[in-house]
Amino acid sequence: MRGYVPGEQPQDDGWTKLNTNENPYPPSPKVVEAIQAAATGRLNIYPDATATEFREAAAELFGVTPDWILAGNGSDENLTILIRSFCDPGSQIVYPYPSYVLYESLAAIQGCSVSRLLLRADLSWDSSEAAELSEAARLVFVPNPNSPTGNLWSADELQQLLPRDGILVLDEAYADFADSPHSGELLREERFAQRMVVTRTFSKSYSLAGIRFGFSVADPELTGGMHKVRDSYNCDAVATAAATAAIRDQDWMLANRRKVLATRVRLATALAELGFNVTPSQANFIWCQHPSGRHQQIYEALKERKILVRFMQFAGVRAESGLDDGLRITVGTDEQTDLLLAALTTIMPEQT
Amino acid sequence: MRGYVPGEQPQDDGWTKLNTNENPYPPSPKVVEAIQAAATGRLNIYPDATATEFREAAAELFGVTPDWILAGNGSDENLTILIRSFCDPGSQIVYPYPSYVLYESLAAIQGCSVSRLLLRADLSWDSSEAAELSEAARLVFVPNPNSPTGNLWSADELQQLLPRDGILVLDEAYADFADSPHSGELLREERFAQRMVVTRTFSKSYSLAGIRFGFSVADPELTGGMHKVRDSYNCDAVATAAATAAIRDQDWMLANRRKVLATRVRLATALAELGFNVTPSQANFIWCQHPSGRHQQIYEALKERKILVRFMQFAGVRAESGLDDGLRITVGTDEQTDLLLAALTTIMPEQT
Repeated sequence: MRGYVPGEQPQDDGWTKLNTNENPYPPSPKVVEAIQAAATGRLNIYPDATATEFREAAAELFGVTPDWILAGNGSDENLTILIRSFCDPGSQIVYPYPSYVLYESLAAIQGCSVSRLLLRADLSWDSSEAAELSEAARLVFVPNPNSPTGNLWSADELQQLLPRDGILVLDEAYADFADSPHSGELLREERFAQRMVVTRTFSKSYSLAGIRFGFSVADPELTGGMHKVRDSYNCDAVATAAATAAIRDQDWMLANRRKVLATRVRLATALAELGFNVTPSQANFIWCQHPSGRHQQIYEALKERKILVRFMQFAGVRAESGLDDGLRITVGTDEQTDLLLAALTTIMPEQT
Repeated sequence: MRGYVPGEQPQDDGWTKLNTNENPYPPSPKVVEAIQAAATGRLNIYPDATATEFREAAAELFGVTPDWILAGNGSDENLTILIRSFCDPGSQIVYPYPSYVLYESLAAIQGCSVSRLLLRADLSWDSSEAAELSEAARLVFVPNPNSPTGNLWSADELQQLLPRDGILVLDEAYADFADSPHSGELLREERFAQRMVVTRTFSKSYSLAGIRFGFSVADPELTGGMHKVRDSYNCDAVATAAATAAIRDQDWMLANRRKVLATRVRLATALAELGFNVTPSQANFIWCQHPSGRHQQIYEALKERKILVRFMQFAGVRAESGLDDGLRITVGTDEQTDLLLAALTTIMPEQT
């Protein structure tokens, strides 16, 4: 089995990192305070096994009770918990493709088989194909907004993906960057009730990729089953304190969100002017393709200049979709965007 | 499936917590500094995916190269990674019993079957039974020192547990409390080479149960396979900084270890004077049984006084072993021990 290959994470300074969709702005000062206070707390004692205080804060934001919330060590752990809860070896997992290929690695570890729902050029799927694949699935994973394409699917589209005897997982890692942010409203719609789990992360909108904390929101009955398979103390006391402070400081997150959305418009416009086909984005990154098709060369030329973007290739996409490869560029600060655009202005004439 | 039930973790003050084998002393001041420094670091950026700096520090302590080390989110995650790496559904897992029953929950999640190697009254096993069970196992888990009994098995005894086509996992959560501490020496013995994994945790000797960090030590070939199944960024930046500072401050850990070992002698002596049968311990807890058999009542009487110890019951032990139930009492501070002994002095006459 081949392991999932995450984006490059150089630990030395001097890089303009636009490859793994981190938030370019720091976390709330209240998060820093919370971590520093936790450092002098009772670290020799096991944490609250169910992160009660955090769950209360998250429940308030989502308009549910705390028994809808399960905290995890990054949303990757939440995805693992979902597979371990709902799948047996041989169970069918479905996800749109191209999308977050880690689902395939996680499925393989658990001995599940995976079917890809191939996206069309306009990022829609064939609804009868969707229904047929989802029907027999135990889990359907849908990043919404999607990565790498940054599009958001509607509730009616998502409804086509409900398994008959399984769960639809909305991986909302990027939801806070959507034009209309949402807080689990679909979970309360009759058609989705008890058939859907929403996952969230602190790595993106809350600027906490360094602490690894995520959570899921789902009907208490589903959540109760998931609690049984997680590690007893999966969330550390410091990370939980940080996440609790972060989710309580919505103003800080929303202010950063506004900055990212403003820069997203600027970046999209500039990329289009440089000749890229830019997919409208509801996330903190932009998927773009150049008619020259020289995405790998552009990626490498940027890397030589210490600018990292993500060159992505997807084997086996729908033939006419044009989704074989492209660049996924994180929306950074305006300064980072200036550096990127200046470099591209130099690079692109050579590449076309 | 029934989930593993961890020890009680009251979050309010006023409890004397001697039930989950935490270290009663705080972590090194250098750990506190490292966490506070990390709080103002680049938390918006993903951590180093392989915890390089930590692995270098751990490798030095164990006299190996960093590619022997895999960091995890608490040693429970390391155990999960081991099962996911080496087992398929239906694979056989063996462990001595009574021992750490979480192994059974983790095995069940992965669809593995578990065989218990039943301990005798003197905490040894039947060597032909051990060989027969281990022979066909994919993984053999052995806590060494064991919990709840606190005994340490010898290298020759452990050799009896080597699977023919599998791995022996030494769960060394309590190794630093053994009379002769060890640092993976067995991994370099010919008979165990490439057939053994050692796991360690920061929750006990390093006083960091709050941060959830553990690691495994094993031949690079085994370790490489395990890297493929872990989450991409399973260790958070703050926890990794804390663990790195902790492992570098051996003096602090060893000073706390000395205090725990001194109190262990005192506690064992006093419990014996109170009429308990005390099993000699190589860990930071003591397994004791009272001839009255009224372990649950003693546990409850202590709990009424806000003193928590662990009342443990083990179904299906070897009939003549006498290991059906007992009390596992963590070695706390001298003050906590005074409180416990004063309470027991009141309680015991009523219970005998």
